[in-house]
Amino acid sequence: MADARRIVLDVLKPHDPPLRKFTEHIADAETVDAATGSLIELDQEVQNVKITVEGTALDYVAIEESIENLGGTVHSVDQVAYGEYIVEDHRTLQDG
Amino acid sequence: MADARRIVLDVLKPHDPPLRKFTEHIADAETVDAATGSLIELDQEVQNVKITVEGTALDYVAIEESIENLGGTVHSVDQVAYGEYIVEDHRTLQDG
Amino acid sequence: MADARRIVLDVLKPHDPPLRKFTEHIADAETVDAATGSLIELDQEVQNVKITVEGTALDYVAIEESIENLGGTVHSVDQVAYGEYIVEDHRTLQDG
Amino acid sequence: MADARRIVLDVLKPHDPPLRKFTEHIADAETVDAATGSLIELDQEVQNVKITVEGTALDYVAIEESIENLGGTVHSVDQVAYGEYIVEDHRTLQDG
Amino acid sequence: MADARRIVLDVLKPHDPPLRKFTEHIADAETVDAATGSLIELDQEVQNVKITVEGTALDYVAIEESIENLGGTVHSVDQVAYGEYIVEDHRTLQDG
Amino acid sequence: MADARRIVLDVLKPHDPPLRKFTEHIADAETVDAATGSLIELDQEVQNVKITVEGTALDYVAIEESIENLGGTVHSVDQVAYGEYIVEDHRTLQDG
Amino acid sequence: MADARRIVLDVLKPHDPPLRKFTEHIADAETVDAATGSLIELDQEVQNVKITVEGTALDYVAIEESIENLGGTVHSVDQVAYGEYIVEDHRTLQDG
Repeated sequence: MADARRIVLDVLKPHDPPLRKFTEHIADAETVDAATGSLIELDQEVQNVKITVEGTALDYVAIEESIENLGGTVHSVDQVAYGEYIVEDHRTLQDG
Repeated sequence: MADARRIVLDVLKPHDPPLRKFTEHIADAETVDAATGSLIELDQEVQNVKITVEGTALDYVAIEESIENLGGTVHSVDQVAYGEYIVEDHRTLQDG
Repeated sequence: MADARRIVLDVLKPHDPPLRKFTEHIADAETVDAATGSLIELDQEVQNVKITVEGTALDYVAIEESIENLGGTVHSVDQVAYGEYIVEDHRTLQDG
Repeated sequence: MADARRIVLDVLKPHDPPLRKFTEHIADAETVDAATGSLIELDQEVQNVKITVEGTALDYVAIEESIENLGGTVHSVDQVAYGEYIVEDHRTLQDG
Repeated sequence: MADARRIVLDVLKPHDPPLRKFTEHIADAETVDAATGSLIELDQEVQNVKITVEGTALDYVAIEESIENLGGTVHSVDQVAYGEYIVEDHRTLQDG
Repeated sequence: MADARRIVLDVLKPHDPPLRKFTEHIADAETVDAATGSLIELDQEVQNVKITVEGTALDYVAIEESIENLGGTVHSVDQVAYGEYIVEDHRTLQDG
Repeated sequence: MADARRIVLDVLKPHDPPLRKFTEHIADAETVDAATGSLIELDQEVQNVKITVEGTALDYVAIEESIENLGGTVHSVDQVAYGEYIVEDHRTLQDG
């Protein structure tokens, strides 16, 4: 089975815990080597953040759990990379 | 015969299975070293995703089958690279 | 526990101390290896600055304290990177 | 005589054979080390594709033949590179 | 104490001395390893220039003096980098 | 005397010979190590192409002759690089 | 004294001598290791060109003389780099 090496998530999270604690918690999840959280937008109730996790064999369920444990929800999975290395995708000519 | 080293596909897929499972399944297809799936757009019925696969001798039929097994359809083949290495194509002056 | 390796802050600070002293003070905070301060905007009362700090195990509380000691306030945490290395996040196709 | 090392072609091709087979066939042409085909546009009759081929001494006639054998036509030669290495051309200041 | 490694200044200077002499003088200031001056705008009275200085332990006061000795004024400090290396800051997703 | 290492030309050429032959012929000119021709625009009579030639001591007269031998004319010399290496020029802040 | 390592000039020159001869002449000036000339604009009387010169200890006066010997005038000095190496300047966040 191919291993997941990068997962990019669009996540909605409550203001509490802050992005730091939230991302730290995800980075502590099983199989995660590193995680970056970036703020996209926020309003009074929620923060919309982008979470990028990398590892050699990422366990999506463990990652999703770590998000949900802190009150977050995965709004969409924007990118996933599986296999022997991470294939970077690019805009092709048709993408304009 | 020249070998296929990268294939970039514009794919329509049902919401289920999720992009993760979908890309993992493609990455498990014969001859695929690595695969990245990126969400482009989604509506209530389908997701439009970009699938980039790389390997040293990609078997397109096996890849297309892996997509169709999970209810996906290849909307268009946006880029293919064959030969001894991957030639990156660039916008030329005429492309503006 | 995963360690924080980069924290990017949107900060509001008084004109005094100047950005130099402010950033120097942050760079002196425990666990900070390096810090960059960039001016985004200023009006008569305050300066809006971006502070990027990096280290191998950043202590956010110490950093926030160093900011508040000099009259600054963290307006938002824009990006945090935890784990074995810094994962650079990118715009994915859905980000347009 | 200087050798051709890269040729970039704007090609019109029928829908059949697909871009894969078309590009594979070009990559199999004499003197071609690698070939990439990218879809630019398509309508009901034809596909407009960009073909980038590289090698150490490309035989244009063999390449054009491989295109025409599969029903394609070279709409324009957008870029060619001859000599000891590939000179990458850039927009100069006058190009705006 | 963390050392300053890069300081980027928005400076207003008289036409005389010219940018060359002005930047040379700054580069000669204590603790400056290298300095680049770029013209942003000019009108009849003054030139608006960007001065970027780098070193291993920059002395801001000496740099500011070198600017003021030649009739210049620091309009704003746009970026400062302190610590063991220069952290390059980037636009984050929230910056749009 | 400083040697020319890169010359970028805006050239008008007849449709015949094709850009391939045209660029090949330039690449064969004395002192040229490599040459790239890119199509910018074409109308019924002529093609407007950019020719970039590189070498260690380019002979402009020989290059111009090779262009004129094939019915081309140098519309403008857009960039020239002389000396011990090729200095890449960049937009400076004033260029906007 | 800090040495000049790069000087970028906005220059007005007559059509004759051509940009080649003009840039070659500058590249031959004392202390110049390499020089690149790029055409920005031209009208019936003059050419507006960007001249980028690099060296380890550039003599501005010699460079200006070489320009004026051929009927050119320095319209503005757009960038100068002094010191132990060339500091590349970048747009900072405030530059938008």
